[in-house]
Amino acid sequence: MTAQLIDGKIIAEAVRREAAEETAKLKAQTGQAPTLAVVLVGDNPASQSYVTSKGRACEEAGMGSITHRLPATATQAEVEELVRALNADPAVNGILVQLPLPKGLDEEAVLNLISLNKDVDGFHPMNIGQLVMKGRTPQFIPCTPAGCIEMLVRSGIEIAGKDAVVVGRSNIVGVPVAALLQNADATVTTCHSKTKDLPAKVRNADIVVAAIGRPEYVRGEWLKPGCAVIDVGINRIPDATKKSGARLVGDVAFAEAVEVAGYITPVPGGVGLMTVAMLLTNTVRAFKLQHGIA
Amino acid sequence: MTAQLIDGKIIAEAVRREAAEETAKLKAQTGQAPTLAVVLVGDNPASQSYVTSKGRACEEAGMGSITHRLPATATQAEVEELVRALNADPAVNGILVQLPLPKGLDEEAVLNLISLNKDVDGFHPMNIGQLVMKGRTPQFIPCTPAGCIEMLVRSGIEIAGKDAVVVGRSNIVGVPVAALLQNADATVTTCHSKTKDLPAKVRNADIVVAAIGRPEYVRGEWLKPGCAVIDVGINRIPDATKKSGARLVGDVAFAEAVEVAGYITPVPGGVGLMTVAMLLTNTVRAFKLQHGIA
Repeated sequence: MTAQLIDGKIIAEAVRREAAEETAKLKAQTGQAPTLAVVLVGDNPASQSYVTSKGRACEEAGMGSITHRLPATATQAEVEELVRALNADPAVNGILVQLPLPKGLDEEAVLNLISLNKDVDGFHPMNIGQLVMKGRTPQFIPCTPAGCIEMLVRSGIEIAGKDAVVVGRSNIVGVPVAALLQNADATVTTCHSKTKDLPAKVRNADIVVAAIGRPEYVRGEWLKPGCAVIDVGINRIPDATKKSGARLVGDVAFAEAVEVAGYITPVPGGVGLMTVAMLLTNTVRAFKLQHGIA
Repeated sequence: MTAQLIDGKIIAEAVRREAAEETAKLKAQTGQAPTLAVVLVGDNPASQSYVTSKGRACEEAGMGSITHRLPATATQAEVEELVRALNADPAVNGILVQLPLPKGLDEEAVLNLISLNKDVDGFHPMNIGQLVMKGRTPQFIPCTPAGCIEMLVRSGIEIAGKDAVVVGRSNIVGVPVAALLQNADATVTTCHSKTKDLPAKVRNADIVVAAIGRPEYVRGEWLKPGCAVIDVGINRIPDATKKSGARLVGDVAFAEAVEVAGYITPVPGGVGLMTVAMLLTNTVRAFKLQHGIA
């Protein structure tokens, strides 16, 4: 085992502690706490568990947390009405609509409705546009991509001038993380299902971000020795040795990769923990924006 | 000389002819012609010449063209008032503010003011966000990047699955052209001033888009034999053999590149001619959007 582990637990805790300290200061200054409203429509078990952990993280940081639950039968108009009410509520600083929404609801229309200065998920096209454009500043950086960069920076890994490969081009991870790496002066290649000779692309990379949702797809032998690997994937695979009959693995074959890479994030215990931490950071930022605090 | 020339004159003429045909149809259908309003602030000679050629191209296509000239001393409020009036004018379908604006004016604020459905330059962050996001559709594709893709497509050059290198990361060319190539399923690497070993990056590319504004910077020996080269650069360099004492060259060393590439755009006579042509396409599109014509 050669690679240094990038420990999501330690880094996420540091980010959460900083958000808690900032929250305490803001409370002392304004008498109010940054507050996140989460909208959960339907009863998807994974979504329920995410929403619970987001609420708990807010409370642990001393922040306010409100969860609005709508039944799976909620209409588009009902969901939109709720988002409008939250936009208008001065006690709500950040709004997060837990995805995916039940079938039949227009996700894009709901997300586009969230006030830009409460869009702590950072998925509004206006926000993504400002993220990818030179010299523009988005209101919020989407949480998981921000977490990837935070892990690199806090591990002392240089980004400027490095060759980075992003595997995956989703709106939630691939597109924004590529923009963030490019803004930090990396030379970024975004790979996807139509990419020819992916192993050769990965082999050139000093920094690899894997976000494709395929268990252990990126192999150790694809990696350049000493590179940094950020594994965004969280995949459940069968494992008869576990009581649950399954275990979680990333998009990278960890056991192989750890022998070649210089740095690597584990799964679980890696990027997954950063998403909630960065959500707290964004909610603090939203509070400051709305209160005109620099 | 081995490379096939991608002739901007022929392709731009085809695009302009199509816009003229579309305009004639729309006139017959609605009694109105798609109309572009251009705002020119100050007396920059290059800007004046661009504005003149845009106006002439509109007229040649049977489209309406209105040019608003404001003095270099115009205030931010005056420029914004004009844009607001054009937003509100139903006879104006597309609005183009010629850049750069004189110093002291806030370009970003002016551009963000243009109605999304009249933003024929496509530079609004909301538009760029929709361009880079998967599954979203921008109202308009910025003209020069759209022209680059049009040249590839009309020359029968396949993009899907190819390796593309974009040299330059400007908001006007690099960022949107990289997004368009990626949307067309190329694997895109965006290079810039902090990129290490640019020649090696270019050597891997099936498609090279050069948009850095440095005369003849990309050398022939950097190219992969048979690749397609789209040269966006227009640089004036001294040339004692010319009456004007200068000539135009691209960002690619043409004489060398033409011996290695499979396809190449000349400068002048290449991408430069496409920008105005795509502006006509976008103005037709704006007219249709505003008239609810599919």
